[in-house]
Amino acid sequence: MADMAAGAEGPLYIYSINRVETNIGRILNALAQTGRSHRIYYAMKANRYATLLKKLAQSRLCGVDICSPNELDHALACGFRAADMSFTGTAVSNRDLDRLLAHKSLTINCDTISMIRRIGERARGREIGIRINPAIGTGYGNQKRLVYAGTHATKFGIYREQWREALAVAASYDLKITSLHFHSGCGYLDAQLARWEAALTAALSFSAGLSDLRMINIGGGLGLPHKSTDACLDLSRWASIIRRHFKDLDVTVAVEPGGYIVKDAGMLVLTVTDIEQKVGTRFAYVNGGFNLHPEPMFYNLPCEPVACIRRDQAPSDWSKLTIAGNINEAQDLWAEPASMPPLLEGDYIALLNAGAYGASMSSNHCMRGDFEEILI
Amino acid sequence: MADMAAGAEGPLYIYSINRVETNIGRILNALAQTGRSHRIYYAMKANRYATLLKKLAQSRLCGVDICSPNELDHALACGFRAADMSFTGTAVSNRDLDRLLAHKSLTINCDTISMIRRIGERARGREIGIRINPAIGTGYGNQKRLVYAGTHATKFGIYREQWREALAVAASYDLKITSLHFHSGCGYLDAQLARWEAALTAALSFSAGLSDLRMINIGGGLGLPHKSTDACLDLSRWASIIRRHFKDLDVTVAVEPGGYIVKDAGMLVLTVTDIEQKVGTRFAYVNGGFNLHPEPMFYNLPCEPVACIRRDQAPSDWSKLTIAGNINEAQDLWAEPASMPPLLEGDYIALLNAGAYGASMSSNHCMRGDFEEILI
Repeated sequence: MADMAAGAEGPLYIYSINRVETNIGRILNALAQTGRSHRIYYAMKANRYATLLKKLAQSRLCGVDICSPNELDHALACGFRAADMSFTGTAVSNRDLDRLLAHKSLTINCDTISMIRRIGERARGREIGIRINPAIGTGYGNQKRLVYAGTHATKFGIYREQWREALAVAASYDLKITSLHFHSGCGYLDAQLARWEAALTAALSFSAGLSDLRMINIGGGLGLPHKSTDACLDLSRWASIIRRHFKDLDVTVAVEPGGYIVKDAGMLVLTVTDIEQKVGTRFAYVNGGFNLHPEPMFYNLPCEPVACIRRDQAPSDWSKLTIAGNINEAQDLWAEPASMPPLLEGDYIALLNAGAYGASMSSNHCMRGDFEEILI
Repeated sequence: MADMAAGAEGPLYIYSINRVETNIGRILNALAQTGRSHRIYYAMKANRYATLLKKLAQSRLCGVDICSPNELDHALACGFRAADMSFTGTAVSNRDLDRLLAHKSLTINCDTISMIRRIGERARGREIGIRINPAIGTGYGNQKRLVYAGTHATKFGIYREQWREALAVAASYDLKITSLHFHSGCGYLDAQLARWEAALTAALSFSAGLSDLRMINIGGGLGLPHKSTDACLDLSRWASIIRRHFKDLDVTVAVEPGGYIVKDAGMLVLTVTDIEQKVGTRFAYVNGGFNLHPEPMFYNLPCEPVACIRRDQAPSDWSKLTIAGNINEAQDLWAEPASMPPLLEGDYIALLNAGAYGASMSSNHCMRGDFEEILI
């Protein structure tokens, strides 16, 4: 790893295709236990590195979940067919719609009644999906930022209160509702499964009377543990919930994980630029900041830093170090503090669990946005 | 404005050069009251739109504050000379240093003792600046995120406790300390001026005995009101503080505002894609999300939305609307709620005070990162 980092000009994202495929395999195994036909749409917003997407397209293990016309074009360029994509976006403009509707086999989940109407005006009789809002949400630690459905109206999907109107608008344009979609939130683990089941139950009630329905997309949000106290998501338990609720439904179960597939398959490797004592705090500065991977700072999801060093002997005198990035903001800290072996300037630090919402959300703030990516 | 927006393919940033020059002029007038030679380094991290930078370079009203080698190259390309730049960065790698040191007339403020040493190794005898940390900070509303110096050690600058060592390292390489720099935090207003004066007093005490000193950079952070209850920063009062504390110092006063110069000179104009009732909430969706302008969501700095509509009559029945962006995250809301006149799909909404830390911090999250910029 240190060798790879040494070969890079600056910050380096390293992704493992084995880990990605293992993660997908784990979900496919669980879905096989549901006894229903099923498919995975990988949420490419988590990581759109072209080399990775091309591998996934070749593997045919999954389709892709897309949320913008540019993601559609990128997925096509990486080898996915429109028929292997599910679009679930919000605030979809007419310009967006024209780009999406050019692909007849694309599944388009409508987020608003307005979107249903505007599709109807452009493509009368088309097949559509509808994103519904089960009014029950859950997410990692039930953090408000990560919950996407609930009693407080979120912007996503059509609520029960507007459902009758949505169906009437769809019918008025002869649109066929072949897909339903819901998403309860991001990062749910075992502790949130009971609540997730309640959301699923509420969501499935929308399927009543939809004679053209072929697929129900149960969203993404499958979580990974972030703290040592977090219990992993038990996929067998998750699958048994799906099996129980889908037993009388003759539809394909679709799921669109992003972070679950790529998060722990990637790390960001940075170089230590300075080791410095400042008053009572010892800092290790590194050549990359939060703009390369906003999740730890902005979403308060910890990101474990690990020293990548080669020493003849195992280091014994670990100490607490605050890891600081190279952005001119006081809050640009990777860890405050982390336990680290003795570090020297020029050593490397890997930030684990950086495979999702890192590179794909990065900015060029302070023009410190350069990085390289590699898939191994 | 609506005409300009209609000519754009999507989200549009509009900047006013008049407003930028007015803001600079206000600071120059205040600095003139200090009775000291002075200069402004515009903090280009706030907005690096090339057309704007070129205008500023031509105007010769200010230099630029840069914080990365890429910003250096960009500023050079826009017409600034290295002599008109002040570099203040953190976690500066050896690769960065090699790029900076290629420009002999560039003022480089060292953030760590390690950086002093590494410059000494590469450019013995060079002139340097040192960023010091006054251990007193202030910022907008004294929010922790916006305070850059204080009793809790931040990553920036050299503290009093390490000052003697810093001077010794500089002396060992015959480095001449020609500039001192400090920055107390972001967005200070009148209510924070007393605390800012305390920081200034602490900072100036570092100048004792520095025989080569020619410039003291008092940082940026000059604030703009964000709420109707915020009192503006009184620049006369600010200048009188500077005048009082610099009266016995024969140095140039440098200041490096960013947001103060460009924030209220820019707006982000978005198109309404959907107007939709969801349970008890009425949403207006727009064709751009927080990734285009992260400040409101991530820094909790409100960003006023204003309807840009042409109607024959002044609308009377205003209502509360939640303004939602096009990113697939529940928290991607511009206002929750805002008071708006009746809006139609296709209308435009301008988000005010978007001239700073908007485009320059934008990301391509969800591949929704496209926008255009125009300077008028």
